[in-house]
Amino acid sequence: MRRLSILVSYDGTAYHGWQVQPGLPTIQSTIEKALSVIEGESVKIEGSGRTDAGVHALGVCAAFNLKNPIPTDNLRKALNRLLPFDIRITRVEERPANFHPRFQATAKTYEYRIWREEVCPPFLRRYVHHHPYPLDETAMIAAAARFAGEHDFSAFCSTDESDILGKSKVRTIFESKAWRDGETLYFRVRGSGFLKHMVRHLTGFLLEVGKGNNTAEDLVEILKGPPAKVAFSAPAQGLHQISVEYPLP
Amino acid sequence: MRRLSILVSYDGTAYHGWQVQPGLPTIQSTIEKALSVIEGESVKIEGSGRTDAGVHALGVCAAFNLKNPIPTDNLRKALNRLLPFDIRITRVEERPANFHPRFQATAKTYEYRIWREEVCPPFLRRYVHHHPYPLDETAMIAAAARFAGEHDFSAFCSTDESDILGKSKVRTIFESKAWRDGETLYFRVRGSGFLKHMVRHLTGFLLEVGKGNNTAEDLVEILKGPPAKVAFSAPAQGLHQISVEYPLP
Repeated sequence: MRRLSILVSYDGTAYHGWQVQPGLPTIQSTIEKALSVIEGESVKIEGSGRTDAGVHALGVCAAFNLKNPIPTDNLRKALNRLLPFDIRITRVEERPANFHPRFQATAKTYEYRIWREEVCPPFLRRYVHHHPYPLDETAMIAAAARFAGEHDFSAFCSTDESDILGKSKVRTIFESKAWRDGETLYFRVRGSGFLKHMVRHLTGFLLEVGKGNNTAEDLVEILKGPPAKVAFSAPAQGLHQISVEYPLP
Repeated sequence: MRRLSILVSYDGTAYHGWQVQPGLPTIQSTIEKALSVIEGESVKIEGSGRTDAGVHALGVCAAFNLKNPIPTDNLRKALNRLLPFDIRITRVEERPANFHPRFQATAKTYEYRIWREEVCPPFLRRYVHHHPYPLDETAMIAAAARFAGEHDFSAFCSTDESDILGKSKVRTIFESKAWRDGETLYFRVRGSGFLKHMVRHLTGFLLEVGKGNNTAEDLVEILKGPPAKVAFSAPAQGLHQISVEYPLP
């Protein structure tokens, strides 16, 4: 039995997120179906992380076991022939038998894109959050840098995650940065791991800073104090999973 | 009665081209419907040119008469609220009563995009022609420049247009250029006007040059000689209408 990993890029618009859900199209189930055609029996995959409905990805890593001896280059081509065009496999690699794409990941990077002009180009409508209203972007850019460090992010995750008592909500953000390029305001964050909806909540907080409802100083207090829900979750379609990192073999 | 023009950008994927067709969604009918809501009665528009099903546009100009005294800025916003997100109005302008977006156009620019790598990013799948197979791009780039000038383009249009005898197929190409940028091979052409399917046929010819089935020298003969169908029409989704030009008022 071989252990293989695939690097996956997808347009999440048509899917109910990564994770298998009975009766609904998901990224995971669509890939499992294609792999099962190649293997001739059911294949299950494990992903580096889950994305919500409508979230996009440039490089999610997924791993699975395969008996079929098909060379990795041919497997990549065969999968891309079987998969719909909104899911693409950019790489296939042999891995050690114990490789796990989630447990062994050392860092993950996400990017959120906000379109700032009145008219959103039709070609970008699925890939940005359109927010043409006034925002103090300088304050947002300053606040974005404050997420860096090891913090309890209980205030920045979905309720179904924050309600699980005893499960650590501490995560380490290695880099956090917002910047403006052309008509797009970008927010990019690289960290050890992320709670459910965390990047969308961080973005939601930044939007509140931009509107003057919160400040970077509030953030310092929120990260120190007892958990409290402080920010709405920014829409899924502006969020892009960028990459996942592993230790050198 | 006012004469107004709108500049329109659209993702053509979901539409049966520009022109009204009974019972089918088209760009023209979708815009006419939105304008008619604002006017309270039927409004008909005239476009700077027609695009085929699946072709995209960055700046088609369309004109219409309106009684409603709504300011142009408000009309732009009202239209964008009424229209689906794959059609956007980027500009609204007052025009002289005799303005006609097709007859008065002095130049039109189109661009064709060919994705050259094995894997086409999911985000571009509707906006490029994916051709990952070998092509002599140097020969294509040299041939593309040869389209420039005044020629009879009978060999480069759809049969329903070339079959109309006595209608001139002579057009002037002001600029014609192909180039590679990253994974995309671009072909951009600016001319006095274009026959039906002409840019797609020019691109089809370039692809045959790339495959070694035609040469730039063949082109010289084809443009001199009696009309003959020489090239297939490249797929619609790689084609983007870029701009239309008018004389200074």
